[in-house]
Amino acid sequence: MAAKADWVAVDWGTSNLRVWGMDEAGRPVFERLADRGMARLAPGEFPFVLADLLADLLADAGAMGALDVLVCGMAGARQGWVEAPYLDLPADLGALGRASVPAPAPGQSFRVRIVPGVCRREAGREDVMRGEETQLLGVSVLRPGFAGLVLKAGTHSKWARLEGARLIDFSTAMTGELFEAASAHTVLRHSVGGEVMGPLTEEGIAAGLEAGLERPDLLTTLMFRARAAALVSERGPDWCSGYLSGLLVGAEVAGHRDEIGMGPVPVLGAERLTRLYRAALKRIGVETQPVEATEATLAGLAAVHKQIYATR
Amino acid sequence: MAAKADWVAVDWGTSNLRVWGMDEAGRPVFERLADRGMARLAPGEFPFVLADLLADLLADAGAMGALDVLVCGMAGARQGWVEAPYLDLPADLGALGRASVPAPAPGQSFRVRIVPGVCRREAGREDVMRGEETQLLGVSVLRPGFAGLVLKAGTHSKWARLEGARLIDFSTAMTGELFEAASAHTVLRHSVGGEVMGPLTEEGIAAGLEAGLERPDLLTTLMFRARAAALVSERGPDWCSGYLSGLLVGAEVAGHRDEIGMGPVPVLGAERLTRLYRAALKRIGVETQPVEATEATLAGLAAVHKQIYATR
Repeated sequence: MAAKADWVAVDWGTSNLRVWGMDEAGRPVFERLADRGMARLAPGEFPFVLADLLADLLADAGAMGALDVLVCGMAGARQGWVEAPYLDLPADLGALGRASVPAPAPGQSFRVRIVPGVCRREAGREDVMRGEETQLLGVSVLRPGFAGLVLKAGTHSKWARLEGARLIDFSTAMTGELFEAASAHTVLRHSVGGEVMGPLTEEGIAAGLEAGLERPDLLTTLMFRARAAALVSERGPDWCSGYLSGLLVGAEVAGHRDEIGMGPVPVLGAERLTRLYRAALKRIGVETQPVEATEATLAGLAAVHKQIYATR
Repeated sequence: MAAKADWVAVDWGTSNLRVWGMDEAGRPVFERLADRGMARLAPGEFPFVLADLLADLLADAGAMGALDVLVCGMAGARQGWVEAPYLDLPADLGALGRASVPAPAPGQSFRVRIVPGVCRREAGREDVMRGEETQLLGVSVLRPGFAGLVLKAGTHSKWARLEGARLIDFSTAMTGELFEAASAHTVLRHSVGGEVMGPLTEEGIAAGLEAGLERPDLLTTLMFRARAAALVSERGPDWCSGYLSGLLVGAEVAGHRDEIGMGPVPVLGAERLTRLYRAALKRIGVETQPVEATEATLAGLAAVHKQIYATR
C-alpha cells in the first residue's frame, strides 16, 4: 500500500536529507532518510531527488492535485536549490512562512516552499543559521511562553536567545567541526582514537571539561596536551579523545558564561554531544532541559506550514 | 671540489631535514635541505638519508676517521632514528650534550649523537619539545645573561621561560596547525584562500587580532565569523584568511598575557608568522626582539657540540 500524507516536511542539510509525511494535525506518519545533502547536489537535481524519495506518495496523490512540500535547512542556501534570503535579527519566527520562497520543480506533481535562514549583518558580529530557526520556532511551540537562552549542539552549535517566537540574538560556535578536523588532520590524530566509550574516556572528558571551563582562553595550548599526555603520561586514545571533546565543549560553554544566566537552558542535539554540553553547564551550576531535536524540527515545520496554509 | 667541514650539524624535523657543514669555530660552511623528515622514514633509513646527503664530504673525510654528526629535533622521538629520552623541567640546557644519545649508523663513516628534547611530566600540565631546546640554548648564547620569556612561533609555538641556559618552564600552542586544519578541512575552506597578501588581508589580520585579543575565550565562535562574514558581508578570501590567522594568534597571545610580563620578548620563527605574533604583542604593549631562527639553531648545536667534544 502506498504511503499517505497531507503534506511533506523536509529537513535538507549539508550532508543528509530527512523527509516526513505529515498528517493534517502536523504529526509525522512516515520518515525517510537519504545521504543526498545539499553539498552533493546541483540546483537542478533537488526536485528529482525528492521525486525519487516520494515516488509512491506522488503516484497516490496524483489524482488529488499537487502535494505541498515545506523545506528547511541548507536547500535554501545560495548554492542550494533556490536561495531563500536570510531574515535579519531580531527575527519574528512567526514570519518564516510569509518569507518562505517557492522552489522550481518543473513537471513535478508537488509544490515546494523553502524556509529562510536568519542572519546578523552587523560588521564584526556577522552570523548565519539555516535550519535552526525552524527548530527554534519548534521550541517556542513545545515550550509556550519560554524566554531565555536555547542551545542547539551540533557540528556548529547555536546559542540562541528566544522570547516566545521572537529570535532576539544568536551565535554560532564551530566547536564540533573543529574537534573533527583536529582529530583527523593534526598531530592529535596520533593520540585520539575512534569513539571508545568507557571509564577512561569519562575520565578524559572530566579532565577536559575542567580545563576548558577554567581556561577557555588557552584553547590551542590545552589542545596540545592531548598529544603531550599521550607521550609522557601514556594516556590512551580513549582518554585523549574524551579530554579533547570535553576541553572544546568546556571552553565553548565558559566563553558564553555571561550570556547563559541561571537557566534552565533547553538543549537540542544528538545525545552524544548534548551529554557533554549538559555536563559542562551542570559544572557551572546551570540546569538544562533536553529537547528532542526531531520533535523541535517537526513542530517548527508544522508551525510554518500553518503560517502559510492556515487560510486555505 | 668536495665540501669540507669539521663536523656536521643537523636539524631533523617532522617534514624536513636541514644539514650544515660546520667549521671549528662553530660557523656553517655549507647548508643542505631535503624533504626527508622523520614522519616519512623508518628508523633504519636515517643513516642512509644522511650518507646520501653527505656523500662528497664523507669521501673526502674518509681518510681522517669518522665524522661527528650532531642532530636535534624529531629524529630523537620514539618513532624516529633512536629515542633520546626527554630531560625534565626545569632543565639545564648546559647538560644537553651529556644527555645526548648515540644513534646507530652501521657501516657508515660518521658517528651520530642526538640531542634530547625536554618535557614536563606533571599530570594535567604535560608538555613536550624536541628541537626548540637547542634553539633556546642558542638564544642563551646569542643573548648572554637573558632571563625572561622567549617565543618560538611555528606550527606548534613554544612560550619558554629562560634564565641563562636554564629552561624553567614552557608551554606549547598548536595554533599554526589549527589554522591549517581549519582552513583546509572545515566549512572555512569555502571562505579562506591561499596566501594573498594585500591591504584587504592586512585589514582582516587587524580585525582578527583585535577579536582574538579581546575574547580569546570565544575562539570557536569567532572562528565561524570567517564564514559568516563571507556570506553576509561579502568578505573575500584575502580578508577571511587574514582574519582567521590574526584571530588565532591574537587569542594565543591573550591567553599567555599573564606570563608575558613587560618584555622585550625574543621572537623566533618564519617571518610570515612572527610578524603576526609581534603585531599582537605590540597591541598589548609588549616589545619584541626578532631572533633569526637558523642562527639560534646553529648557535645551540655548536654549544652542544662544545659540551660533548670540548675535552678532546
